[in-house]
Amino acid sequence: MDPIQRLTELFEKFPGIGPRQAGRFVQYLLRSAPAIRRELADSVQLLAQSARQCTSCMRFHGEKGKVCSLCANSARDTALLTVVASDADLAALERSGTYSGYYFVLGGTISLASEKMTGLRHKQLLDGLQERIQKGLQEVILAFPANPEGDATAIRLKEEIGRKYADLRITTLGRGLSTGSELEYADAETLKNALAGRK
Amino acid sequence: MDPIQRLTELFEKFPGIGPRQAGRFVQYLLRSAPAIRRELADSVQLLAQSARQCTSCMRFHGEKGKVCSLCANSARDTALLTVVASDADLAALERSGTYSGYYFVLGGTISLASEKMTGLRHKQLLDGLQERIQKGLQEVILAFPANPEGDATAIRLKEEIGRKYADLRITTLGRGLSTGSELEYADAETLKNALAGRK
Amino acid sequence: MDPIQRLTELFEKFPGIGPRQAGRFVQYLLRSAPAIRRELADSVQLLAQSARQCTSCMRFHGEKGKVCSLCANSARDTALLTVVASDADLAALERSGTYSGYYFVLGGTISLASEKMTGLRHKQLLDGLQERIQKGLQEVILAFPANPEGDATAIRLKEEIGRKYADLRITTLGRGLSTGSELEYADAETLKNALAGRK
Amino acid sequence: MDPIQRLTELFEKFPGIGPRQAGRFVQYLLRSAPAIRRELADSVQLLAQSARQCTSCMRFHGEKGKVCSLCANSARDTALLTVVASDADLAALERSGTYSGYYFVLGGTISLASEKMTGLRHKQLLDGLQERIQKGLQEVILAFPANPEGDATAIRLKEEIGRKYADLRITTLGRGLSTGSELEYADAETLKNALAGRK
Repeated sequence: MDPIQRLTELFEKFPGIGPRQAGRFVQYLLRSAPAIRRELADSVQLLAQSARQCTSCMRFHGEKGKVCSLCANSARDTALLTVVASDADLAALERSGTYSGYYFVLGGTISLASEKMTGLRHKQLLDGLQERIQKGLQEVILAFPANPEGDATAIRLKEEIGRKYADLRITTLGRGLSTGSELEYADAETLKNALAGRK
Repeated sequence: MDPIQRLTELFEKFPGIGPRQAGRFVQYLLRSAPAIRRELADSVQLLAQSARQCTSCMRFHGEKGKVCSLCANSARDTALLTVVASDADLAALERSGTYSGYYFVLGGTISLASEKMTGLRHKQLLDGLQERIQKGLQEVILAFPANPEGDATAIRLKEEIGRKYADLRITTLGRGLSTGSELEYADAETLKNALAGRK
Repeated sequence: MDPIQRLTELFEKFPGIGPRQAGRFVQYLLRSAPAIRRELADSVQLLAQSARQCTSCMRFHGEKGKVCSLCANSARDTALLTVVASDADLAALERSGTYSGYYFVLGGTISLASEKMTGLRHKQLLDGLQERIQKGLQEVILAFPANPEGDATAIRLKEEIGRKYADLRITTLGRGLSTGSELEYADAETLKNALAGRK
Repeated sequence: MDPIQRLTELFEKFPGIGPRQAGRFVQYLLRSAPAIRRELADSVQLLAQSARQCTSCMRFHGEKGKVCSLCANSARDTALLTVVASDADLAALERSGTYSGYYFVLGGTISLASEKMTGLRHKQLLDGLQERIQKGLQEVILAFPANPEGDATAIRLKEEIGRKYADLRITTLGRGLSTGSELEYADAETLKNALAGRK
């Protein structure tokens, strides 16, 4: 197949990209300097060779070791483990610069349709807690999105963890007005949390 | 002037309405049953005659008394007074069904450009607190939008109230993830508040 | 009922207006100068009294006579009659300043579901053509939106008019690129018309 | 540099892609099957090796020959040459299935700020016309977007071509209502063209 058409079809599979934008990506590459095209080819090839999942937090990374640099960093706080749904949520928390503990990526949230944890890594999470506790873990922070799926996942994990490790503190993120929220447009649940959490 | 054109121009002054939609409003009225047009004319006239501002919470209402039905309701909790920026914010809190104290509408927030409280009713608020305290007021909740203007207004009011009434508890709404928030898109400030407010 | 609530409900029936914006309209009126409220009340009342439909072009107007000022204007070109779907379309053509003939408002387009002309004024249109021809009418311009409903309406009217008045010229608006169109985003039909109509 | 970060930065340079979506592209690749990553790497490499510009129409392609398959196709109509601004516009016309002549990609439109044709291939276009005329060319269709830049480019090219090849027919695309246009929202220019082009 024509490399333009082949590449267009590959870009169409990218998240949120339709045929028109896929075509524009290829046009961009065609008009770019040869060095850009070569660098992209090299980077994709390198990623294809080096992409791996951290055996500790389960996020994807392109680093050398089996364990990613966050998990390998012994300067972080062993008392805290934050469980997030996705690599993107981990990245957002890390960017915020307000957290210094470790992470675990669950791989999603419960689907409300099935109410099952299919495809999630809750077993790996539970299996690894014993070792983390020995290293000083005191609190598991369940940091899921503030929606029904996130809430259901937190409730389920709290039960499962609590049953096995009764002494572990298990918390969820605080609710209230988020930056930019206007009362006029806030839902009743958020206003209730904002009033209850006033200080 | 032609009543169609005159009415179009009046609708154009409505918040968020441009010439095109103003024209569409008039077309809607022209096509409506005469009863609708007459009811609108009557309602606007009635509003023109009866609109008044509550002398206690300062919100606008179309009720008979000088004081609105919320302020006149002696079953509400005299220990709590929530200060909001606008009538719309008061309505949102009231709709949420989670608050049973009284309200005071400040009439806006501080403009960050001038840093002045011009046009706000902070003096009326301060003047009225003595009487509210005698009736049992214990806490003033500053319920402003979660933005720089809202924050600046809360800081200023806290100072002014605290200077005069040192024993009054002054609180602000809790911050954190609001309903629907996804970690991936949350700003650092919200994530920080969500982590700090975890429970 | 409270005039605020009553007026909010009336504004909610306005095209494109939800409960939130309806409430904001009432707040705007409450905060406005009394003169604004009174002028709105008067204008709506005047509209309620004076709104009438032109017996010639069928558009709504608030003028004194039975026939609107456009139809009463003898300086316009009697050779041309443009049939539009709505008062808003008539207004758009008139604003464009490129047409000097007369108008007839059909009251809508054919619904593709029923393929019926229910509610449209095609009979009035046909009945009035004889008199217009005596006054010099030579061409009927069918100016409907460039969508399937508009096309179906034009086809049907062309048949009906042609059957009765074989000598009348019946035209439809030209198709092609409209201002701002970019080829990249144009549909095949528009590109075909643009190529066919090149000059 | 980490291949994830390096690839994220390369994707950020893609048209319309910000840091967040670039990151999501990399996450998508990390989660994909190894075969997808390898295919993408191969396709980008192949494109890097094979991307070339057609020496006849100047569009980019990934085919083997110096001349693209469209220009090499002797079954197309040598009487017609359509000049477009971009490869994307050429693709749109080709997709519409209504044109069977040849193309020339100018590489953009005149910037209204400079009124200069800097960076455009008008000289190549003019130089090649002699040969195209000998092969049967009779009409040059200037197919630019319906905006001031497109209009200015058409006017300038018409002058330049007309001066050298007085016998060549030079046309521009027809204007009017484009598919989906509603009269109510159409600008005066479009309505004027639609009325002038009625038939």
